[in-house]
Amino acid sequence: MRALLLSSDGPRFCLDHALDVREKEAIVEVSLAGVCATDLELVKGYMGFSGVLGHEWVGRVVSSPDPAWLGRRVVGDINAACGTCGTCRAQRHSHCPHRTVLGIAGRDGAFAEQLCLPVRNLHAVPDSVSDEMAVFVEPLAAACRILEQVHVRPGMDVVVLGLGRLGQLCARVLALTGAEVLGVSRSQGPLDLLPAGIRGALSANLSPEPLADLVVDCTGSSAGLATAQRWVRPGGTLVLKTTTHDIGEASPTGWVIDELTLVGSRCGPFAPALRLLERGLVDPTPLISARRGLGEGVAALEQAAEAGVMKVLLDPRG
Amino acid sequence: MRALLLSSDGPRFCLDHALDVREKEAIVEVSLAGVCATDLELVKGYMGFSGVLGHEWVGRVVSSPDPAWLGRRVVGDINAACGTCGTCRAQRHSHCPHRTVLGIAGRDGAFAEQLCLPVRNLHAVPDSVSDEMAVFVEPLAAACRILEQVHVRPGMDVVVLGLGRLGQLCARVLALTGAEVLGVSRSQGPLDLLPAGIRGALSANLSPEPLADLVVDCTGSSAGLATAQRWVRPGGTLVLKTTTHDIGEASPTGWVIDELTLVGSRCGPFAPALRLLERGLVDPTPLISARRGLGEGVAALEQAAEAGVMKVLLDPRG
Repeated sequence: MRALLLSSDGPRFCLDHALDVREKEAIVEVSLAGVCATDLELVKGYMGFSGVLGHEWVGRVVSSPDPAWLGRRVVGDINAACGTCGTCRAQRHSHCPHRTVLGIAGRDGAFAEQLCLPVRNLHAVPDSVSDEMAVFVEPLAAACRILEQVHVRPGMDVVVLGLGRLGQLCARVLALTGAEVLGVSRSQGPLDLLPAGIRGALSANLSPEPLADLVVDCTGSSAGLATAQRWVRPGGTLVLKTTTHDIGEASPTGWVIDELTLVGSRCGPFAPALRLLERGLVDPTPLISARRGLGEGVAALEQAAEAGVMKVLLDPRG
Repeated sequence: MRALLLSSDGPRFCLDHALDVREKEAIVEVSLAGVCATDLELVKGYMGFSGVLGHEWVGRVVSSPDPAWLGRRVVGDINAACGTCGTCRAQRHSHCPHRTVLGIAGRDGAFAEQLCLPVRNLHAVPDSVSDEMAVFVEPLAAACRILEQVHVRPGMDVVVLGLGRLGQLCARVLALTGAEVLGVSRSQGPLDLLPAGIRGALSANLSPEPLADLVVDCTGSSAGLATAQRWVRPGGTLVLKTTTHDIGEASPTGWVIDELTLVGSRCGPFAPALRLLERGLVDPTPLISARRGLGEGVAALEQAAEAGVMKVLLDPRG
C-alpha cells in the first residue's frame, strides 16, 4: 500500500509498504490524516522511531474481530496498551510500560492507506462530525487532558503560551470553562485565528506581564518554561505540553518558594473531544492550512514545519 | 537583649540587640526556639538575610494591641503579610509579595529573648502541648502543607526521600492518612527514629527500586529530584521540599511523557499542626538531639549541621 515511511535516512513516500497486520486487531482504511509537531520531531530523531508516521487520522473499519465495528467511521486512541499489567489494571492504559504508540513507538501509523489498532482503541465518529473535524480528535483530546488534570474554574486567568497547532486547540478548550484566556504568540498570524472572546497578545508587546492562575506551555521550546514561570502567580499551575531536555532559565528554587504546581500533560480522552465537536463547541477547521495527497507527504512535512503554517492534512488517496 | 545575629561576617551572639519593635504588633518572650536547615542555608548566604535568625519557636505574649492575647502561650506563622494587596485579598497571605518573613526576610527572628509579630499571625498553644512539642509547630505545619496540596489517599504508596528534620515530620504526617509510607535515608540513624508502621530503607539497599504514587523530596540536595522522578510511577506526584538552583539529572521530557505532577511546597497551616500535637497523633520530641543556651548559639548552628543531628533547640535564657 501507499505509505509515508520514516527510516534513519529520513521520511520517504513508498508505494508498496505491507500493512503490519496484527492478530485480533481492526484494520482501518484511513480517510484523512493530520501532521503534528511530534511528527516533525520524529523526523529529527525523537524516540528513534522508524516505520509509518502519523497518529492523527479518521477512517473506516474494513476488518474487525468484532463485526459490530465493520464499516463504521472511527478515530482511535494511539496508545495500544497490553491490558494485563499493573498499570493497565489500575486503568492507566496510556502509561502502560509495554504499550506501542501509533506512528510514534513500535507501531506503524496513519500516513498510509490502512492502519491496525485494537478494537478497544476505536471511537465511532457521529455523522454530523466531518472528516475534516474528526481528524483533529487526537490533538483535541490532548487539549481536553488539561481539564482532567487541573480544575480550571470560571474565574481563573489562563495564559496559553504558544499558539501553534496544539496551543490553538488548548485555548479553545480552556475557553469553554468561562475562564479568561489569553493566547500569546511571537507573531500576528496565530492571533488572527483566535475565536471571539479569547484575547490574544504578541509576546513582545506584553506590558505589564500577565500574572495568571494557570499558564499552559505550548511553545515547543525549552525557553517556554521560564516564561511560563514568570507569568504565573505564586501558588499557580504550569501545564507542560512541551517535551524538552532542559528547563532553560526556569528556577527550581522559585517552584518551591512560590509553591508552583507543574503538570506534565500528554495524551487525552477521545470521547469528550468527540462530544465537543458534535456539539459544535470547538471548530478546528479554520486551523487547516493545506490538504495534500499522501504522495506529496515529504513536501507536506516540510510545509508543516514552516512558520505560520497550522494543520496540514494528508489524503491517502491523493 | 540577648540575640543570635547574622551579618555578612557570619552569625554571632550579641548581648545588647535592640528589639525591632513594630507598631500594632505583639511582643513575645521566646521560651524555646529550634534550628532548621533553612537557618544553616541563611548562614551560607541564602536570601541575603541579615538580622536575628530563627523562625521555629514558642513563647508568651508580653505586649499586644489586643489585650486578649496578653500572657498567652503562643506560636506564630512566620509570614507577615501586608493584608491589603490582591494576593492577601485572595487569602494567599503566605505569598504576599510585600511580606516579611520572621528570621528569613526583612524581619528579626526568634533566636533572641523577644520577637515581634502581628497578632493575626499568633496561635494559642493548648496547655497539654509542651514547649518541646510546640517548638516543632512551624516545620510540622510545613509537613501538613503537603496534605493541603495533594490528596493523599489511604491506598497510596508514598516515599519520603531524605529523613532529616523535615523528612521525619513529613513521614509522620503522611502516615496519618493510612497510606504505605517508606522513608529512605543514606544512613541508618534516621531510620531508627521512624515510628512503628513506617517502613525505612537505606537508599543504597533499595532493590527493587520503589514505584510510588507520591514521592516527597526532603533531601535538601539537587540530586533529590532525579531520584524522586525515578521512583514515582507514571501519572504520579513529586512534592518538592528542597530549594535548589538546578534539577540535577532529572528529565523534563519524562515529566511530560509520564505526566508527572511536581508540587513546590513551603510553609503550612499552624492550626492543624497544633491539633495533631494536642491529639497526640505526632510526637516530634524523639527528634530533639540537643538543647543549648542561646549564648552557645553559634556552636548550636554548627552542631545542627553535623551528620545525624536532628533538632537542636535553643533556650534564650541560657
